[in-house]
Amino acid sequence: MSEIKTIVTIASHSALQIMKGAKQEGFRTALICLENRINVYTRFKHLIDNIFIIKEYSDIIRNETQKILLDLDAIIIPHGSFVEYIGIENLYKIESPIFGNRKLMEWEYDQWKKYELLKSAGISVPQVYNKLNDIDRLVIVKLPGAKGGRGYFLAMSKDELIMKAEKLNIDLSQAFIQEYIIGTPMYFHYFYSPIYDRLELLGSDIRYESDVDGLRRIPYNIVEPTFTVVGNIPVVLRESLLTQVFDYGEKFVKITKTKVPPGVIGPFCLEAVCRNDLKIVVFEFSGRIVAGTNLYIQGSPYSWLYFDEPMSMGRRIAREIKLAIENDALDKIIS
Amino acid sequence: MSEIKTIVTIASHSALQIMKGAKQEGFRTALICLENRINVYTRFKHLIDNIFIIKEYSDIIRNETQKILLDLDAIIIPHGSFVEYIGIENLYKIESPIFGNRKLMEWEYDQWKKYELLKSAGISVPQVYNKLNDIDRLVIVKLPGAKGGRGYFLAMSKDELIMKAEKLNIDLSQAFIQEYIIGTPMYFHYFYSPIYDRLELLGSDIRYESDVDGLRRIPYNIVEPTFTVVGNIPVVLRESLLTQVFDYGEKFVKITKTKVPPGVIGPFCLEAVCRNDLKIVVFEFSGRIVAGTNLYIQGSPYSWLYFDEPMSMGRRIAREIKLAIENDALDKIIS
Amino acid sequence: MSEIKTIVTIASHSALQIMKGAKQEGFRTALICLENRINVYTRFKHLIDNIFIIKEYSDIIRNETQKILLDLDAIIIPHGSFVEYIGIENLYKIESPIFGNRKLMEWEYDQWKKYELLKSAGISVPQVYNKLNDIDRLVIVKLPGAKGGRGYFLAMSKDELIMKAEKLNIDLSQAFIQEYIIGTPMYFHYFYSPIYDRLELLGSDIRYESDVDGLRRIPYNIVEPTFTVVGNIPVVLRESLLTQVFDYGEKFVKITKTKVPPGVIGPFCLEAVCRNDLKIVVFEFSGRIVAGTNLYIQGSPYSWLYFDEPMSMGRRIAREIKLAIENDALDKIIS
Repeated sequence: MSEIKTIVTIASHSALQIMKGAKQEGFRTALICLENRINVYTRFKHLIDNIFIIKEYSDIIRNETQKILLDLDAIIIPHGSFVEYIGIENLYKIESPIFGNRKLMEWEYDQWKKYELLKSAGISVPQVYNKLNDIDRLVIVKLPGAKGGRGYFLAMSKDELIMKAEKLNIDLSQAFIQEYIIGTPMYFHYFYSPIYDRLELLGSDIRYESDVDGLRRIPYNIVEPTFTVVGNIPVVLRESLLTQVFDYGEKFVKITKTKVPPGVIGPFCLEAVCRNDLKIVVFEFSGRIVAGTNLYIQGSPYSWLYFDEPMSMGRRIAREIKLAIENDALDKIIS
Repeated sequence: MSEIKTIVTIASHSALQIMKGAKQEGFRTALICLENRINVYTRFKHLIDNIFIIKEYSDIIRNETQKILLDLDAIIIPHGSFVEYIGIENLYKIESPIFGNRKLMEWEYDQWKKYELLKSAGISVPQVYNKLNDIDRLVIVKLPGAKGGRGYFLAMSKDELIMKAEKLNIDLSQAFIQEYIIGTPMYFHYFYSPIYDRLELLGSDIRYESDVDGLRRIPYNIVEPTFTVVGNIPVVLRESLLTQVFDYGEKFVKITKTKVPPGVIGPFCLEAVCRNDLKIVVFEFSGRIVAGTNLYIQGSPYSWLYFDEPMSMGRRIAREIKLAIENDALDKIIS
Repeated sequence: MSEIKTIVTIASHSALQIMKGAKQEGFRTALICLENRINVYTRFKHLIDNIFIIKEYSDIIRNETQKILLDLDAIIIPHGSFVEYIGIENLYKIESPIFGNRKLMEWEYDQWKKYELLKSAGISVPQVYNKLNDIDRLVIVKLPGAKGGRGYFLAMSKDELIMKAEKLNIDLSQAFIQEYIIGTPMYFHYFYSPIYDRLELLGSDIRYESDVDGLRRIPYNIVEPTFTVVGNIPVVLRESLLTQVFDYGEKFVKITKTKVPPGVIGPFCLEAVCRNDLKIVVFEFSGRIVAGTNLYIQGSPYSWLYFDEPMSMGRRIAREIKLAIENDALDKIIS
């Protein structure tokens, strides 16, 4: 940990962006890659100095892998697939430093903890239903382990919910039932810099989800919509919304410092709906880089307000690591 | 007016873009800002030399404010929220030069005048209904003062329209009732340069509106759609549409020279629907910068056809001011 | 053919991008332009050295035009409107070298051949129905000559299909009837470089179609949706989809080498739907530049992974020609 030379991540999600950003800031790079993904990542060897093939993600905590990473003086960048792949139980077993706050990644994995954190921050959140009898409006049902929007479904009433759950063979005692806010979805990409003590807004996107975003093109009611994220579409916000967006971002930084010390480090995302009265309601957060930032590998309409050079989220992470090294403040950005 | 040193606007809408563009062209910058917006704009001090806090927008015409602006050798850039905020009755009381044509801003504020201007230009426009009895197809009802799409509603018939108006407690005598064109919405960002006598197309976008653009994801008919603009999504046009797009733009420049002399100056937008037969129908215009240009702070697919440097609409405005100063032709671009 | 000095295309589709890309790589440029398009292209004279006006597209094979092109040492870049405009029967009469494989352009023109090529490549394709009686799900009906999505329609059953065909006065014996895959549409922009023997992914987009993409905003069932492409919207893909995307691209390159030798040259596009189980199904291909690349005139989120300079598809084509000239390998890229 005394030295950091190589930026490492798992070959998925936003790995290409992270590799490019690391190179732009002068680091060596390495990827941990499943065999069936090799076909993609070997195409970008100019961005990746080393590719380590593993059989399954839990191999990351095997002694040999850990040793390789330590020998590389690696820092590991977690992304949206990271905890999902290695397993929450393995998170603390990784010996190399991780960019960010491991504890926050753990919280993120639990819908109730996530929700409580947002709520206690003073950020507007949807109603959550603990009792089916309380359901009085459109709700979205999220199952534990449902990732990237897969396995979510909608219901207008308790009866409809129970009927669908039976059809899908779902154990409702595990389900997280949340008010479905009517409005437009929007995702805000923040970066909190512990080195500068500065909150930056680096982008925003809309998720492109299958099949819900295709069904609107069909004048038939064939199937229930599903919400599997398959891509991201760029969007800029009505400028007057930035008041709420920065306010929420600051509140999130503050609450994580109190409840999950040392608080959020680097990228995070508030996942929201903007209602027609211009009120923003946040239904989830991500405590690490989100895939929507892949849109902005050459900078976003927001990053160009801060930087006079192309600044992706991947590069911003590498920049923060470089700044931390230069300021002898690595402890501020790793866990 | 003999000298211009500082580019000034109101802190909203496209202010960040205007500030950055001004800096890129070497101007000093200043923002007039309501107290509750300060949290956003102080984050971008590197783009803004002075921030003047006011209590309400009408303070802009107070003597103290006017003096400050005159002392700064300011030119004021109006944007979409400008006339709305300061009030049409205060527009001519501003002593500092305004980039653009104040008279056109006044016309823009009146749905009927707007419509007549487009129509007399020879641009395809939707049918407008003066008598409820004439309604024979889908219409959209726009109320005076309904801004950013808020307060619009749809109706298929006279009866439905009256029913909805009663429900919303609306005085229909004030309503502007327009045929709702079936097709895809598209917004074209033009810049007319009086210095070059050149019409440029600098971008295009699709508005992202709450909650209409979210409702399509819900397989229930819960609520009437609303049309509050909350963001903008980039789009490029089928290249063969450019024939119409440039033709309409030229027609708009020409008619404003005749009917609202000296005509449009700088940015304007035609707000249109493209029908499935590839005919473009224009339902509104904006005689100043639109927020959709915020997408293109580092240039758009169109701006890169004209310029070999990043050219946002904000920068293009500043460039035109610089050109006017260099050519001793400020009178061509201000009012 | 021993020398190539001028990059030429027809004034439509992606011509502006092709002209700019050619200039960036140091070529002379020329456009073949119908009179009614002149209003657009003369605005971009800084990108176009010569504009040749023709009365109808078939004039391209007239002796005078052919001589002009030969005198310019021209290479012709075909785009989506190219074969459609000049006519499949004229394709081989052009004496100047064409960038790409003329034979593939011919195949592309036939829905059945297209479909068979994809299928024999081992790429997932939708079911195709030769007998109306076999229709057992939602289908899309495509008529020969229906271009840019115009003239397509949907049906849920044989009966509905026949009813609609009668209403539209369509000869069903000519129709191409394809399963309509439920999911989200996505278009992948590839470039296969014969010089590098390398497959690149340079972008992806979603088509913006009139009126289907506008109908979703209307809570009425007024009209049957139509699918006329009027623009393109940027999208990035979930990174884990790249495995399939590159696999399909490689399969396409391979099958064209076998079945349509020498195979695809330069840009091509797979036109797909991503299902909610993350399976990509390809319903069509384009064997040349697609208009969705117009989004990325200054580079795309993918092109920036390969190149440290702005690389549009238009520029990539010009770059490949330059590389071929430098390597004395022009025969590899023309036909």
